[in-house]
Amino acid sequence: MKILKNSLVFLLVAQSASCISQEASQNKTNFHPGEIMVRMAEIKIDANYVAEYMAILREESEASVRLEPGVICIYPMFQKDNPTEIRLLEIYADEASYKSHLQTPHFKHYKETTLKMVESLKLIDMEAIDMEAMPRIFKKLN
Amino acid sequence: MKILKNSLVFLLVAQSASCISQEASQNKTNFHPGEIMVRMAEIKIDANYVAEYMAILREESEASVRLEPGVICIYPMFQKDNPTEIRLLEIYADEASYKSHLQTPHFKHYKETTLKMVESLKLIDMEAIDMEAMPRIFKKLN
Repeated sequence: MKILKNSLVFLLVAQSASCISQEASQNKTNFHPGEIMVRMAEIKIDANYVAEYMAILREESEASVRLEPGVICIYPMFQKDNPTEIRLLEIYADEASYKSHLQTPHFKHYKETTLKMVESLKLIDMEAIDMEAMPRIFKKLN
Repeated sequence: MKILKNSLVFLLVAQSASCISQEASQNKTNFHPGEIMVRMAEIKIDANYVAEYMAILREESEASVRLEPGVICIYPMFQKDNPTEIRLLEIYADEASYKSHLQTPHFKHYKETTLKMVESLKLIDMEAIDMEAMPRIFKKLN
């Protein structure tokens, strides 16, 4: 039953992608659970640049997920009680995808323009507790 | 083009859901971006219970996303260099969904069985920087 379910999900998601746009279908990734990179970025920004920083980050993360097959997720948030505390959940298909991400024009633009805004940056390697849960996440958001 | 894209995504995702199982299609959520609850949970657990705790958490988060329409995401991770440091990205459709989650048998079971394993718990309210990015996340994982 589970295999049938997964096959159906695969088929229908693949079908969705190919219907939506060429870009989206080209954007599919073959990932191997053992190679996936999951990371939390903890970024403290200068209070003078909150709005400006968020606009740049939003643009950069949107472009990364849209244009890079190996960028599975960049999910940017800030702490409600302290908007200078930024957190990102980042998921890359593998290390090569991450290294290639660092060379993209949109990432370089983000890095250069926000350099003066970032007070501290901590990158924490994470491990997903339930790899199988990943495709289910956000499935409910149409 | 964007509206067309969204409509296609909606139609195909709805179709996927109804093909997979009744459970999944019943599980669809109407959410309003303004009401959504995003949260990071930072949990420090007793080093003697790492494997046991993760197995219980995995079961609880899987059941929550599968059974509760208002639980959009519970994504559990641990820090690679320090597996006693657990992090969860939690997304609920609204506050009512969160309150109802606290009353479910699977959450109560998790809470009771892990009580002795948890050394500290911090719940941090977050705001997503790009609400529109949410449906795109994990789309690449089939």
